[in-house]
Amino acid sequence: MQEEIMNSITNNLFTVNNLWMMIATALVFIMHLGFATLETGLTRSKNTVNILFKNSIIPAIGILTYTLVGFNLMYPGEDFAGAIFGFAGFGISADAAALTPAYNIGYTYWTDFLFQGMFAATAATIVSGAVAERIKLSTFLVFSTIFVGLAYPIAGMWKWGGGFLDALGFYDFAGSTLVHSVGGWGALTGVLFLGPRIGKYRKGGINPIPGHSMPLAAIGVFLLWLGWFGFNGGSVLSADPGAVSLVLVTTSLAASAGAVGAMLTAWKLLKSPDITMVLNGILAGLVGITAGADLMGPTSSIIIGFISGILVVLSVLFFDKLKIDDPVGALSVHLVCGIFGTLAVGIWGSKAGLDQLWSQIIGVASVGLFVVVFTGILWFLLKSTMGLRVSEEEELGGLDLGEHSMEAYPDFEKVV
Amino acid sequence: MQEEIMNSITNNLFTVNNLWMMIATALVFIMHLGFATLETGLTRSKNTVNILFKNSIIPAIGILTYTLVGFNLMYPGEDFAGAIFGFAGFGISADAAALTPAYNIGYTYWTDFLFQGMFAATAATIVSGAVAERIKLSTFLVFSTIFVGLAYPIAGMWKWGGGFLDALGFYDFAGSTLVHSVGGWGALTGVLFLGPRIGKYRKGGINPIPGHSMPLAAIGVFLLWLGWFGFNGGSVLSADPGAVSLVLVTTSLAASAGAVGAMLTAWKLLKSPDITMVLNGILAGLVGITAGADLMGPTSSIIIGFISGILVVLSVLFFDKLKIDDPVGALSVHLVCGIFGTLAVGIWGSKAGLDQLWSQIIGVASVGLFVVVFTGILWFLLKSTMGLRVSEEEELGGLDLGEHSMEAYPDFEKVV
Amino acid sequence: MQEEIMNSITNNLFTVNNLWMMIATALVFIMHLGFATLETGLTRSKNTVNILFKNSIIPAIGILTYTLVGFNLMYPGEDFAGAIFGFAGFGISADAAALTPAYNIGYTYWTDFLFQGMFAATAATIVSGAVAERIKLSTFLVFSTIFVGLAYPIAGMWKWGGGFLDALGFYDFAGSTLVHSVGGWGALTGVLFLGPRIGKYRKGGINPIPGHSMPLAAIGVFLLWLGWFGFNGGSVLSADPGAVSLVLVTTSLAASAGAVGAMLTAWKLLKSPDITMVLNGILAGLVGITAGADLMGPTSSIIIGFISGILVVLSVLFFDKLKIDDPVGALSVHLVCGIFGTLAVGIWGSKAGLDQLWSQIIGVASVGLFVVVFTGILWFLLKSTMGLRVSEEEELGGLDLGEHSMEAYPDFEKVV
Repeated sequence: MQEEIMNSITNNLFTVNNLWMMIATALVFIMHLGFATLETGLTRSKNTVNILFKNSIIPAIGILTYTLVGFNLMYPGEDFAGAIFGFAGFGISADAAALTPAYNIGYTYWTDFLFQGMFAATAATIVSGAVAERIKLSTFLVFSTIFVGLAYPIAGMWKWGGGFLDALGFYDFAGSTLVHSVGGWGALTGVLFLGPRIGKYRKGGINPIPGHSMPLAAIGVFLLWLGWFGFNGGSVLSADPGAVSLVLVTTSLAASAGAVGAMLTAWKLLKSPDITMVLNGILAGLVGITAGADLMGPTSSIIIGFISGILVVLSVLFFDKLKIDDPVGALSVHLVCGIFGTLAVGIWGSKAGLDQLWSQIIGVASVGLFVVVFTGILWFLLKSTMGLRVSEEEELGGLDLGEHSMEAYPDFEKVV
Repeated sequence: MQEEIMNSITNNLFTVNNLWMMIATALVFIMHLGFATLETGLTRSKNTVNILFKNSIIPAIGILTYTLVGFNLMYPGEDFAGAIFGFAGFGISADAAALTPAYNIGYTYWTDFLFQGMFAATAATIVSGAVAERIKLSTFLVFSTIFVGLAYPIAGMWKWGGGFLDALGFYDFAGSTLVHSVGGWGALTGVLFLGPRIGKYRKGGINPIPGHSMPLAAIGVFLLWLGWFGFNGGSVLSADPGAVSLVLVTTSLAASAGAVGAMLTAWKLLKSPDITMVLNGILAGLVGITAGADLMGPTSSIIIGFISGILVVLSVLFFDKLKIDDPVGALSVHLVCGIFGTLAVGIWGSKAGLDQLWSQIIGVASVGLFVVVFTGILWFLLKSTMGLRVSEEEELGGLDLGEHSMEAYPDFEKVV
Repeated sequence: MQEEIMNSITNNLFTVNNLWMMIATALVFIMHLGFATLETGLTRSKNTVNILFKNSIIPAIGILTYTLVGFNLMYPGEDFAGAIFGFAGFGISADAAALTPAYNIGYTYWTDFLFQGMFAATAATIVSGAVAERIKLSTFLVFSTIFVGLAYPIAGMWKWGGGFLDALGFYDFAGSTLVHSVGGWGALTGVLFLGPRIGKYRKGGINPIPGHSMPLAAIGVFLLWLGWFGFNGGSVLSADPGAVSLVLVTTSLAASAGAVGAMLTAWKLLKSPDITMVLNGILAGLVGITAGADLMGPTSSIIIGFISGILVVLSVLFFDKLKIDDPVGALSVHLVCGIFGTLAVGIWGSKAGLDQLWSQIIGVASVGLFVVVFTGILWFLLKSTMGLRVSEEEELGGLDLGEHSMEAYPDFEKVV
C-alpha cells in the first residue's frame, strides 16, 4: 500500500512535469511563426512568398530529419559520454518504460523527442533571415536539411548529449551557443559566400533597405518572446516551481532591459527611436540571457539584457560598416548576443568565475570553429554545384515571381 | 488517514488532468483565429471585412448555441447509448459533484462543456471558407447557427455521445469525420447551391483568383497547427503523459510530412513551389492524422501525412476541373483528407484490419449522408426564403462595401 | 513517513498550481501583442510605427518599474492592511521559503511577481489607444512610466494588496476596476487634455477616421480573448479545477454574448453590421465579466456580456457626440464596461445585494477620483514642460515620419 501511494505520487509529479514540457514544446513551436513574421516584416514585399515558404517548410524538414537522425545524433546515449560524435541509430521508438518516470521524471520519450526537435529547426531559421532576398530556394532547402539534420545535433551533443564540452564544464542552459550562435555562424558563412543584396552598398555608402511591414515584424518579436517562455522555461526539463518561475523572470527582465538598452542606444546614435532596434533589442536580451537564465538574479538579468540591447545596435552598425549584409540583423542578435550571453555565465550569476569563463570561451570557440568549417564546406559545395544566388534579374524582380510565380499581395499597388 | 491520502492523490491527478484540458480548450480557441486569418489571406481584400466578421461572430454564436442545446444534444447521457438522437434538456449547469473526480477523472463539467463547445464552432468555420466571397451574410449567419446548433452535435453524438456509430465500433479519435468531414460536407452542398464566383471559370478555362495576403494565410496555418496540439492532444481527455505526448508527436509528424508531400506534388505538377499548397499540405496532414492520432507510430504518421499532402494538391486540381469553386481549398483539406484519415484507421496503426475498415466506411458514409441531406434541405430553404447569394454588382464591388459599408484597408491603393 | 507523503502531495499540488499561474502569466503577456495589433489596426497607417513602438516598449518599462517599485507598492505586506499606501522597499528577491508552499500554495514568489507585473503594463496600454495619433512619444513614455510605476500599484493595493477597499468589502475579481477602469480614467484625462485629432469633428459634424487594417484589429481581439483566459483564469490564484473552469466558461460566455449584443445594436443603429463594433463587443463582454467572473453562472454571464455589448456601441456614439475623440474605443470598452462590470457584482451572481452594490460604488468612485486627480496633475505637468501634442504638421504627415523617421509600409502606395 505504501509503495502504491509512493508510485501514485511519483506518477502525479511525472504527469505535471511532462505537461509543462509539452506546453513548452508548443511554445517553442510558435517561435517558428515568430521567425516567419519577423523575417517577412523586415524584408521587401517582393520576397515575401519566398520567405514564408522557407519558414513553413523548414520546421517540417527539421522535425522529419530530427526523427530520422538528429535526435539520435544529439543524444546518442551514455556510451558516448565525453565524446565528440555518437549515433544511436535511425528513427525513433519508445518501449513501455520510455513512457514512465523510469525514462525521466520530467518527461516521456515522446515529449523529449518533440521538445528537442522543435529546437532543432530554429537554428536553420536563423540562417534564413540573414541570407534572405537573394538565395536560391532549392539551394537553401538542401543547406537547411543538412544543417539541421547533422550540424546542429552534432554540436548540441557536445554539451547536451553529454559530449566533451559537458565534460569540460562548459555551461549553456538553453542554447545561447548551441542554438543561437550555431545558427549565427551558419548565417555568417552564408552571408560571406552570398555577398550583399544588390543596391545595399552603393557608391561606397550604406543604403538602408527598409522592411515592408512593421506590424509583421512586431508580431514576430512578441511571438518569439512568448515562445522563449518555453525555450528557456522548458530547458529546466521539469515543472519545478522555483526553477521554472525564476527562469521566466530572468528571461522577461532581460528582454525588457534589452528593449530599453536598444531604444536608448538607437535614439542616441541614430537620432530617432527606431522600432526595428527596439524589436531586435528584445530579442538580443532574450538571446543574451539564454545561456544562464537559471543562474542569474533580477539585477544580473537586467544588466545582461541591457548590455545585449546596446550590443545589438552597435553590432548592426558594425556589420554594415564591414559591408556584411544581413537583412534582419540575425548576426547581431543570434551570433553576437549568443556569444555575449555564453560568456556572461562566467561573469555574472551563481557560476561566475575565471575557470567558468575559460570553459565558456572554449565552448564558444569550438562550436564556432566546427560550424564555420562545416557550413563553409557545405556552402562551397552548393555554390559549385547548384549555385547559391538567384540571377540579378530575379533578385531585382523579387524572388516571389522568380522562384514561385506568385505574389504575396496581388491586390495592392506597390511603390516601384 | 489512508483514505484522505488517496483522495488527495486523486485530486492532484484531477487537477493536472483538468489543467491540460483547459489549456487544450484555449488552444482549440486559437484555431478560430487561425481559420480567420487563413480564410482572409486566401481571398481578395474587397471581402476581408466580411470574412473577419463571419469568423468573429461564429465562435460566439457557436458557444452560445452549444450552451443552449448543443452540449445536451451531443452528450445526452447513458440512456441514449446506441441511439441516433437524444437530448438532455436546455442549458448547462453543474452541481458540486460535477466539479470533482466523481464527474470524470479528466476534467470538470465546465471544462468538458467548454472544450467541446470550442470544437463545435470549427465545423461552421470550415463551411465559411468554401462559400466565401459570394454568400449573403445574413443567410450564412442563419445557416451557421442551425448547423452548429443542431447538425454538428447530432452527428457527433453518434460516436462521442455513445450513439449507434460508437456501438458499431467506428473510431474517430479527434474528429477527422465528426468535425472535419461534417464541415466539409456542409461546405460541399453550400458550394453546389451557390455556384462559383464570377470570373473563376471563364470561357471554359480555370482562372485562378489569388488570395490577397500570404502572410495572413501563413499565420493562419501556424496557428491551426498550434491549435491542433489541443484539438488532438486534448482528445486524450486527460493529461496522461504517454498518450498525450504520443499524440503530439504523431500530429506533428503528419503535419510535417503533409507539407513535404504537398510541396513535392505541387512542384512536380504545377512546376513551381506553391506556398498555398504547402500551407494546405500542413493542414491536410493534420486532418489526416486526426482520426487515429492515438493509434499510430512515427512511421505510419509520416505515411498518412505524406499521402494527405499529395491528396490535397490533387484534390484542389480535381475540384477545379469539376468547376466546384472553393476559394480556400476547404473541401480538399477537410472533406477529402477527413475521409482519408478516417479510413486510415482501418489501414495503419494498432486498430488496422478489414473489420475496422468496414466500420470506418459505415461511419464516413452515414455521417456524410446525414450532413448532405440536412444541409441540402437547409440551403434549399434558405435559398427559397432569404436568398443565398449577393447581387452580381455587390460581388464585383466586394462584400465589404456591399454588406458592411466598410473597407478593410482604406489607406492603401488597390489594383483595380 | 506519513509526513513525507503529505509533503510530497502538497508539493505536487504546489507544482501544478504554480504551473497554471505561469501559463496564465504567458497568456496575459500575449495580451500586449493583442493590444498592439488592435490599436494598430484601428488607426491610420501613417501612425503605425509609433503605435507599435509604444506597445513594444510599454511592457518592457512596465516590467522594469514593477521590479523596482510597483510590486512592493501593490503588495506592501500585512502591516498595511486597510491602509491607502504602503511600500515594502525597492527591488525583488526571494529566499528559499519563497519558492515553497510556505509562500503560497498557489505559486512561488517569482510567479507571483511576474503574473502581477504582466497585469501592470496593460493599464498603460489602455491609455495608449485613446491618445493615439497625436501624442508626443517622449511625453507618453514619461507618462506611462509614472502611471504604471506608481498610480496602478497604489490603486491596486487598495483591494488586492489588502488596503482600505478590501477592508470595506469591495470586490473586483480580476480587475474591471483595478485594471480596466484605472486605464480608462487615465485615458479620459489624457483625451481631455489632448483634444481630438485634426479633422475628426469638422464643421460641427463627426467625421469617422477608419482604421487601416481590419485583420490586425481582429488578430488583436482574438489574442485578447485568449489572453483573458489567463487574466481571469489566473486570478483564481491556483489551478483549482472547479473555480478555474467556471471562470473560463463565464469569461467565454460573456465575450460571446458581448459580440452578439454589439452586432445587433450596431446593425440596428448604424444600419450595417460593423466589424469594429463586434470586435469591441467581444472586449466589452470580457471587461464586463472580469470583476465577477468567479461569482456568476452561465445565465448571468450571458446577461452581463450582452449588456456590455450594447453599452459599448452606445458609449462609442455618446463619446463622439461629446466630441471626445478616442480612436480605438478604449474609453467605451475599458472605462464604461469596467464600471458596469464592477457594479454587476452587486446585481447578479452569488454576492448580489444592496450592501455589495454600495461597496462597488465606493470602489468605483474612489479609484476613479484617485486616478483622475493623479493623471490630471501628471498630464498638466507634462503639458507645461514637455508638451503633450505633436505639431499640426507632424500630425497631418503622420507620427511615423515625424517621431521615428520611418514608414511602416514603405512598399505600398497610400491613398492620399
